[in-house]
Amino acid sequence: MENKRIQIFDTTLRDGEQVPGCKLNTKEKIRIAKKLEDLGVDVIEAGFPTSSPGDYQSVQKICKSVSKTVVCALSRAVEKDIEIAGEALKYAKKPRIHTGIGTSYFHIVYKFKSTPDKIIERSINAVKYAKKFVEDVEFYAEDAGRTENDFLAKVCENVIKYGATVINIPDTTGYCLPEEYGEKIRFLKENVKGIHKITLSTHCHNDLGLATANSLSGIMNGAQQVECTINGIGERAGNTSLEEIVMIIKQNSHLNLFTNINTKLISSTSHLVSECTGMKVQANKAIVGVNAFSHSSGIHQDGVIKRRETYESINPEDVGINHSSIILTARSGRAALSYRYKKLGFVLRKSSLDLVYSIFLKYADEKKEITDTELKKILKIANLNTKILHANNSTNTNRRINVV
Amino acid sequence: MENKRIQIFDTTLRDGEQVPGCKLNTKEKIRIAKKLEDLGVDVIEAGFPTSSPGDYQSVQKICKSVSKTVVCALSRAVEKDIEIAGEALKYAKKPRIHTGIGTSYFHIVYKFKSTPDKIIERSINAVKYAKKFVEDVEFYAEDAGRTENDFLAKVCENVIKYGATVINIPDTTGYCLPEEYGEKIRFLKENVKGIHKITLSTHCHNDLGLATANSLSGIMNGAQQVECTINGIGERAGNTSLEEIVMIIKQNSHLNLFTNINTKLISSTSHLVSECTGMKVQANKAIVGVNAFSHSSGIHQDGVIKRRETYESINPEDVGINHSSIILTARSGRAALSYRYKKLGFVLRKSSLDLVYSIFLKYADEKKEITDTELKKILKIANLNTKILHANNSTNTNRRINVV
Repeated sequence: MENKRIQIFDTTLRDGEQVPGCKLNTKEKIRIAKKLEDLGVDVIEAGFPTSSPGDYQSVQKICKSVSKTVVCALSRAVEKDIEIAGEALKYAKKPRIHTGIGTSYFHIVYKFKSTPDKIIERSINAVKYAKKFVEDVEFYAEDAGRTENDFLAKVCENVIKYGATVINIPDTTGYCLPEEYGEKIRFLKENVKGIHKITLSTHCHNDLGLATANSLSGIMNGAQQVECTINGIGERAGNTSLEEIVMIIKQNSHLNLFTNINTKLISSTSHLVSECTGMKVQANKAIVGVNAFSHSSGIHQDGVIKRRETYESINPEDVGINHSSIILTARSGRAALSYRYKKLGFVLRKSSLDLVYSIFLKYADEKKEITDTELKKILKIANLNTKILHANNSTNTNRRINVV
Repeated sequence: MENKRIQIFDTTLRDGEQVPGCKLNTKEKIRIAKKLEDLGVDVIEAGFPTSSPGDYQSVQKICKSVSKTVVCALSRAVEKDIEIAGEALKYAKKPRIHTGIGTSYFHIVYKFKSTPDKIIERSINAVKYAKKFVEDVEFYAEDAGRTENDFLAKVCENVIKYGATVINIPDTTGYCLPEEYGEKIRFLKENVKGIHKITLSTHCHNDLGLATANSLSGIMNGAQQVECTINGIGERAGNTSLEEIVMIIKQNSHLNLFTNINTKLISSTSHLVSECTGMKVQANKAIVGVNAFSHSSGIHQDGVIKRRETYESINPEDVGINHSSIILTARSGRAALSYRYKKLGFVLRKSSLDLVYSIFLKYADEKKEITDTELKKILKIANLNTKILHANNSTNTNRRINVV
C-alpha cells in the first residue's frame, strides 16, 4: 500500500494569534512564516485581513516573503471580507481564500437568526465570490462538530458544485469524541457527491483535551489535511498541536501516512513561536515542553541510562533536541546519582555510593533539584577524596576518571 | 442501561511530583491530599515511600489526614520497597499497595536483563508479599503499552490468582494510539481468567498528546479506573489530566458513565496544585488554562455575547469558573466593543460605535489587550460625552446607562 500524504495547514498566525495575551507584530509574523516554510508546512494561514489594518498588512507582507507555501487568508461569508482577503493575497505565489459560515443549530438560530436554506445560499455566494479572486478556495462549515451530518453533507455538496477546492470540518467548540468526529468525516466521504475531487480538512479544538485524537481519527477516516498550530495555541484551549499530529504520523508507520514536515525543526519553531507570542509552553507539554525528554525519578532514570528506549518512545533528536536529561531530585535513585558523578569524573564504589546517596537524599528532600556544585559539596561532606575535584571540571574526553 | 462508575485514581502526589522542577514538602502534600478528598477522587497515590525519608513521612501523614479516600503507596517488585510501603500506610483507613514490574521486551531485556518467566515469578512474589501488609493490592505491568498482549494476559492471570485486586495497564512511554490501547484493554477483558473479579485500570502518558484519548478508549473498552493527575503533570509530557477525563465523562451522557468528582472544585484544585508545585499551567490548557473560557476574536465574541453555547460546549460554572471572559484585542469586533462599553455604562449608537471602533483598532494593533481605562481614553479621543464617565464606574445594577 502506497503511503498517503497528509497536508499540514498551519494556523498559528491566525487561530493561534487570536487569543488573549498573544499579539504579534508584522515583523514577528514574517519571521514565523519563513520558519513555517522551512519547517515544510503545506499551507500558512497568515491572518484575517478584515480584522484590522495591521493584520491586512501582515498578510500582504507574508505573501511577499514566502514562495513555496500556499498562503491563506480568512474571511467570513461576507463580500467585503472576501474582497479584502483577495486584495491582501495579491502578491502570493499560491493564494488561498478561506471563507465560510456557521452550520450548526446554535449558529444558525442564535448567531445568524437565519434558516438552513439561507445558510446554504450564503455559503454558495461566498465561494462564488471568492473564486473571482483566487482559484484555491477553502470553505469552512463552522461548528461542524455540532452540525447534523445530513445538513453538513448538503452544505458540502453545494460548495463543491461552485468550486470549493478544500472543505474544512471544524469542531469549533471541541465538542466531539474521536469516534464521533471520525464517523463524521467518513459520512462525508461516503455521502457527498464530488467529495473525491476536493481536499477534506480537520480543524479540531482542544476544549476536552481531544484535539489531536480527533484530528487523528479524521485522517484515519479519510481527511487529507490537518489544521493545527505550533504549541497548540489558539482560541480557548487551543488547536491541534502541529508537533503532536506530525510525530504521531512519523512514529506510526503502520498508518501508511506521511507529511512533508522536517521534524528536526520542531523544537526551534516551538521556541520561536513561544518567544514571539509570549505564550509560554508548560513543562509537561508533549514533544516541546521542557520536561518532555527529562527524567528525574529513580526507576525511569535507571532504565534510560541502561537504554533510552525503556522510557522514551520518541527519539529527542527527531524533533531537534540533542539528548535526554537526567535531573537529580528526591525521587532519583543510585543509578542516576552514579551516572551524574561519572559525568563529573568520579566513579563511586558501592560503599561510597551508599554513603553519598544517603547525604544526597537529605539535601534533595529540601530542594527541587540538585546541581553539579551541590554534588561536589556532598562528596566533601562524605569526606571522600576531594583534592582531585578541580581537575575534573572540564568536559574534555581525556579527563581522568577518579574512583572514590 | 444503568450508568457505570469510573473510579478516579489521582497520582498528582506520586507520578505528578516526580518531575524536574516540581517538589512538594509534607505540608503541601497534605494540603493537596485533603483537597483531592474534597474533590471526590477514589484513590490518592500519596508517594513512593522507599524513594526518600521525606516521601515516607509524607505518605504516613497523608494517611492520618484523609479518611474517606483510599491511600495508595508505590513500590517496585522488591521486598524492601513493599515492606516500607506497608509501614508508611500503617495509619491509613483504606490502604493500598501499588507494586509491579516492567513487562515489555525493552524492560525485561535491557532494564532487568531477565526472562519472561522470571518476571512472572517476581510479579507473583511481589503481590504475595504485599498481601501480608494490606488486602488491597494493585499490580502494575510497566510499559504494558509495548507489551505483547498474550504475555500481558499471562502476567495478569497470575497476579489475580495471588490476590491482586486492581491491575494497572500503563502506557508508560505514551506509545499507543487510542484504538490500539482500547484493543489491549478489550483483549484482557476477554482473555484473562478472573479479570471480572478485579478492577482494570488505565495509566496513560501524554508523549504524543494522546493520554486523555487513550484513557477514554480504555474505559470505553471495559477499564473501570483511570489514573490521572491534576493539570496533567507527571513524567516527561505528563499523565492523563484528571480535569479532561472527568469532564469528557460528564459532557457525554451517552457513554453511560459517571465519576464521583465534584467538578465545581476542579478550578480551585488546579490552582492549588499549580501554586504548590510551581508547575505552571499554560494559557491554552484544556479546562484549567487561563484562556479556556476567554474570547478575543470578533467572530467568537459576537457569538458568545448572543449565546454562550455558540462557542463553548462546556459551561465554565461546571468547573468552578464564574463566567466567560470577553477580552479586547486587535482581533475583536464591534459586538465585543459595544458589549464592553455597555458593561462600563455606555450604549453606543451605530455612528459612535463606528468611530470608536476605528480608533480602538489603531490602539489594539499596538497592544496585546485593551483595558477599561483605555476604552475610556478612546471615548475621550472620539470626543464623545465624557462628563458622565465618573458616574458609571460602579457595578451596581441601578447605574445610569448613557447613550453616546
